[in-house]
Amino acid sequence: MRERQLIELIARRCGPPRDRRVLRGIGDDAAVVAAKPVCVVSTDSLVEDVHFTLSHYTPAEIGHKALATALSDLAAMGAEVGEAYLALALPGRLREEFSRELIDGVVDLAENHGVTIAGGDVVDSSALALTVTVVGWAENPERLVYRDGARQGQRVGVTGTLGAAGAALLLESYDHEPPIPLAADQRRALEQRLKRPRPRLREGLLLAESGASAMIDLSDGLASDARQLAQRSGVRLHIDLAALPLAAGVREVAAARGLAAEELAATAGEDYELLFTVDDRRVAEVEQALAAADCPVTWVGAVEVGTGVVFFDASGHCRCDLHGFEHGRVAAKPERD
Amino acid sequence: MRERQLIELIARRCGPPRDRRVLRGIGDDAAVVAAKPVCVVSTDSLVEDVHFTLSHYTPAEIGHKALATALSDLAAMGAEVGEAYLALALPGRLREEFSRELIDGVVDLAENHGVTIAGGDVVDSSALALTVTVVGWAENPERLVYRDGARQGQRVGVTGTLGAAGAALLLESYDHEPPIPLAADQRRALEQRLKRPRPRLREGLLLAESGASAMIDLSDGLASDARQLAQRSGVRLHIDLAALPLAAGVREVAAARGLAAEELAATAGEDYELLFTVDDRRVAEVEQALAAADCPVTWVGAVEVGTGVVFFDASGHCRCDLHGFEHGRVAAKPERD
Repeated sequence: MRERQLIELIARRCGPPRDRRVLRGIGDDAAVVAAKPVCVVSTDSLVEDVHFTLSHYTPAEIGHKALATALSDLAAMGAEVGEAYLALALPGRLREEFSRELIDGVVDLAENHGVTIAGGDVVDSSALALTVTVVGWAENPERLVYRDGARQGQRVGVTGTLGAAGAALLLESYDHEPPIPLAADQRRALEQRLKRPRPRLREGLLLAESGASAMIDLSDGLASDARQLAQRSGVRLHIDLAALPLAAGVREVAAARGLAAEELAATAGEDYELLFTVDDRRVAEVEQALAAADCPVTWVGAVEVGTGVVFFDASGHCRCDLHGFEHGRVAAKPERD
Repeated sequence: MRERQLIELIARRCGPPRDRRVLRGIGDDAAVVAAKPVCVVSTDSLVEDVHFTLSHYTPAEIGHKALATALSDLAAMGAEVGEAYLALALPGRLREEFSRELIDGVVDLAENHGVTIAGGDVVDSSALALTVTVVGWAENPERLVYRDGARQGQRVGVTGTLGAAGAALLLESYDHEPPIPLAADQRRALEQRLKRPRPRLREGLLLAESGASAMIDLSDGLASDARQLAQRSGVRLHIDLAALPLAAGVREVAAARGLAAEELAATAGEDYELLFTVDDRRVAEVEQALAAADCPVTWVGAVEVGTGVVFFDASGHCRCDLHGFEHGRVAAKPERD
């Protein structure tokens, strides 16, 4: 399929922008959007054989994941979503049907969240790569939640459950060995967490409104992402391993591979849950807001004076050897501690 | 160099944002920017061995070109520049020095135009690829210039000179043959037009202010880009080949290869000049504005009733066989005529 035909396909698949703030979508030199007072922008790339393989992911899953991981960054700011721009580097070897399905994966997720695909680029390439730039908006910069707002004495919370993507990766990488005994629907649920992560957009907004003082999305793993938040805030995070909310099936997968489930949950990346800090007095408000959104919230630790992250296991022993995975995103400041 | 180190390098090289509207640059989940009323966004990808080769381009030229081609789209809208987001897919085989020089190429151009590099992503990849998303701003959407504003009776103008990048490509692709007789400085100037295109940002703003009704940047070649503008506006563009402003050396290179210089200038891409339409009564205003910016302007044709583009040569013969090059950008609507 020639590049222009693919562009036409994307434009048709998206239809005219439904958001009336998008004054011009696909079809001119650039997109034009009526702005709100504050613009929030993040860019994420997914590359074949680095972030996914064609043997393990369907085209729609690749498209979904590329947009979802970018949107997750807007969630972690507490921003309202706006527009997405899709740069697609597509090898000629991939057939037309592949492109259609990939674009469906992007557009379906965009429609679910009211995101307009307002532009992008399609180029030839030897490796499949998707770069998604998402633009979010806020009425007031004071309402956004940065990584540097954690303060001594605050509680540390996390949305949803952890370890699902890590367990799915273990299942995937060992799929030629005797299978791990796990119900098919549980296996499928873990896989979906890895391949179709759900950006916590509504939850991010609710957390911003109910007083979260610092927030980050868990892309590289709690150990690594918590360290970013601690470093940027100039504090230490104390995390109780036993408190981590494990996704169903994580304990079974970890046990079958001789791993401690809590350590898997603390170190594996790609869960795309939100880690945040909040004052004690606003804990009830957070719980109420997330309950209304049908999202579990778990208190996993506290903010202390110091640097870095310290993990404590159920018997009270300190575990300082837990580290997450590095994806290398510009939005993530380098570690210094 | 690990990805986080490279991110640190980019952050250090950029320094803290000088533009006070950039509330958060590199270092959080997303960048945060105080918005103006209208947001203008474009994304462009450059891929190794598709858009450039490492044997012909220096790292700094690749970095420059990636940002320049994206900024050129903002120029073609008549938007003020704002921020850029750089997604870098970098093969491990490229050494640290390469990355430094590439980033220098991006940041030097950004600084020249007052553009803040406010975020991005760095990922591993088998092929070098740069995806740049640029965000521009406008106080009023009515002042932006789209592709669909050309009206019957208007004049068609073009900034600067044409054919330079096409001639440089000819020089490059024949560099193993007996060289084309051309002064070294002229050869160098043509090469620089190809490798370090200058986005016509100031000129785009001036054209928007002085009444340009439609505008497009010449990335795919005048024949192709003029056709886009004609199609989007529902008009025909009449272009006089003999009027096209040839860059110095284009005539010599074309002659040495047995080509008509005007046809090379009309069909070769990557000149990144602006093609625009304007009412007769505002021609003097346009000429005055561009003269103040030290930018040549040439009137190359007229807007007529009809569809597509018709070229006429010096003897008045119609040439309907001229076509430009397809890059396949989402911002470019597919041809229908």
